[in-house]
Amino acid sequence: MADTLELHLVGIGTGNPDHLTLAAIEALNGADLILLPRKGEDKADLADLRREICARVLRADVQVLEFDLPVRASDGDYLAAVAEWHDAIAAEWQRQIACHLPEGACRVALLIWGDPSLYDSSLRIAARLSSHAKTLQIKVVPGITSMQALTAAHAIPLNELAEPVLITTGRRLRERGWPADAASVVVMLDGGCAFQALDPDGVFVWWGAYLGMPQQALVAGPLELVAEEIAEQRAVLRDAHGWIMDVYLMRKSPT
Amino acid sequence: MADTLELHLVGIGTGNPDHLTLAAIEALNGADLILLPRKGEDKADLADLRREICARVLRADVQVLEFDLPVRASDGDYLAAVAEWHDAIAAEWQRQIACHLPEGACRVALLIWGDPSLYDSSLRIAARLSSHAKTLQIKVVPGITSMQALTAAHAIPLNELAEPVLITTGRRLRERGWPADAASVVVMLDGGCAFQALDPDGVFVWWGAYLGMPQQALVAGPLELVAEEIAEQRAVLRDAHGWIMDVYLMRKSPT
Ligand SMILES: C[S@@+](CC[C@H](N)C(=O)[O-])C[C@H]1O[C@@H](n2cnc3c(N)ncnc32)[C@H](O)[C@@H]1O
Ligand SMILES: C[S@@+](CC[C@H](N)C(=O)[O-])C[C@H]1O[C@@H](n2cnc3c(N)ncnc32)[C@H](O)[C@@H]1O
Repeated sequence: MADTLELHLVGIGTGNPDHLTLAAIEALNGADLILLPRKGEDKADLADLRREICARVLRADVQVLEFDLPVRASDGDYLAAVAEWHDAIAAEWQRQIACHLPEGACRVALLIWGDPSLYDSSLRIAARLSSHAKTLQIKVVPGITSMQALTAAHAIPLNELAEPVLITTGRRLRERGWPADAASVVVMLDGGCAFQALDPDGVFVWWGAYLGMPQQALVAGPLELVAEEIAEQRAVLRDAHGWIMDVYLMRKSPT
Repeated sequence: MADTLELHLVGIGTGNPDHLTLAAIEALNGADLILLPRKGEDKADLADLRREICARVLRADVQVLEFDLPVRASDGDYLAAVAEWHDAIAAEWQRQIACHLPEGACRVALLIWGDPSLYDSSLRIAARLSSHAKTLQIKVVPGITSMQALTAAHAIPLNELAEPVLITTGRRLRERGWPADAASVVVMLDGGCAFQALDPDGVFVWWGAYLGMPQQALVAGPLELVAEEIAEQRAVLRDAHGWIMDVYLMRKSPT
C-alpha cells in the first residue's frame, strides 16, 4: 500500500490542443507518471490526439504509460454494469500505478476529455482508489467542455438574459420531452438525434460535432427546418470517420 | 464606417491566471487593440487581475486601452435598464475603437471573465456593433467558468451518473424553489443566499467564493448544517474585501 497518492485529473478540452490551460500544462509536467488509456480501435483518433497533446506540451522526462481499458459488459442492468466497469478500471489504474510509478514518487495524472466534472466517470473511478493508498488526494484541473466549444463555435450565449439552462442527455430528452424549468437546453450523450422526438414548433437549435477538431461540423436554424439536415449529416459523418461526438443547444424563444 | 471589424471575446477563467488557455493567449497576442474596461472602485481587484494577465502573457507591442464603463441605471424596469446599458456600452466600445484602432488594423479583443457564453453580456453588446462596420466578425474563445472552478476545487462531478443539471440564478431559485427537472442545481448571480429559502431536507451543498483567487473560500455539507456558516462567511468576506462573487452546487441525493 502506497503512503500517499496524488491523482491529478486534468481537463484537456475537446479536441483542440489549444484548449489546454496553463494549469493543465503545469499539472501534466509535474506528474511522475501519466496514464494514457486506450479505448479501442474506433476511437483511435482520440488516443492519437492525447498522444499529440503529450508530445506537444510535455517535457521529455515525463513518463507516459499507455494501456488498454477494460471493456464494459453490454448486457444486464445499466447501472450495475457501469459500477462493475468502474471497479475494473480502478483496478487496472491501480495495477499500472503499482508497476510503473517510481519508488518514492506520488503524482499520477490522467488526461480527461473536456472538463472532469461533466458527464465523465474519472472522479467516480478515482474515489475507488482510496483503499489502495494511505492518503489519496484527488486534484482536478478544469478544462474547456464540449458545451463551451459549441457556444464559442456558434458565437452564442448559453443562457438568455438571467434565465436558466438545463444540461441533459439524449436518453432523458427522449423520455421526458421538453423540460419544465428552462427555455435553454443543452443535450449531450445523444446516441441518435433525440431532438426528433420533440415538437419542433418555436424551437431553435445550434448543433456541433467534432468540436475543436479538424472535422468540426456546425448546423444552426429553426428545428423544423434543420432537424433532417442534422440527422443526415450526422449519419454521413459517422460513416466517414467511424465515430461521432455531437452536442446541441436548443432554445424555445431565441434572442 | 470601418470595412471589417473582428471582435474577439476571450474567456480568461475566473481569477487564476493559470486558467488561461493557449488559444486565449494566442488571441490576445494577435489583437491590434485590447479594450480593458474599468468597472468602478469596488471591483478594482478584478481590473488589477486583468492587468496582471495582460502583463504576464502579452508581447510588449500589443496595445491595451483602459477606459471607464458607463454605469447602469438602477431604477425603472430591469430589462429596459439592461438594454439601455448595453447600448451605452456598445457606443463606448465603438468610440474607443474609432479613436484607437490603428488605420488598416481590424482585430479588437476583450478579456471576458469566465466563459463568454455564461451569464455574460459581451455577446449581446457585440451584436450591437454590427451597424458600425461593413463586416463584423465575432469570435469567441472559451474560458474556464466559475462553475468548473467550483467543481474542480471540491473535486466533485457536476452531474450524477447520466442525470441532468440545471444552471440558474439566485433570484430564480428564490422565486420558484427547487426545480422539477434536475437533482443537481448550480446557482450563480446570487446576491444573498437564496438557498435559505429552500427546505434543506436531503439537500447537500458545495459552495465557493473568489474561486481561483488567493481569497478562495469553500464550504460543503448538508444544507441543514452549513447554511448558516455559509451566510456568515459570506457576510464577513464581503466586508473584508469590499465585494464577493460566489457560486454553489446543490444536490438532492448526493452520491
Ligand atoms: C462522456 S461525455 C464527456 C463530456 C466531456 N467531459 C466534456 O466536458 O465535454 C461525451 C459527450 O460529450 C460531448 N462531446 C465531447 N466532445 C465533443 C466534441 N469534440 N464535439 C461534440 N461533442 C462532444 C458529446 O455529447 C458526447 O456524447
Ligand atoms: C456575470 S456572471 C459571469 C460568469 C462568468 N462568465 C463565468 O463563466 O463564470 C457572475 C457570477 O459568476 C459567478 N462567479 C464568477 N466568478 C466567480 C469566482 N471567482 N468565484 C465564485 N463565483 C464566481 C458568481 O455567481 C457571479 O455572481
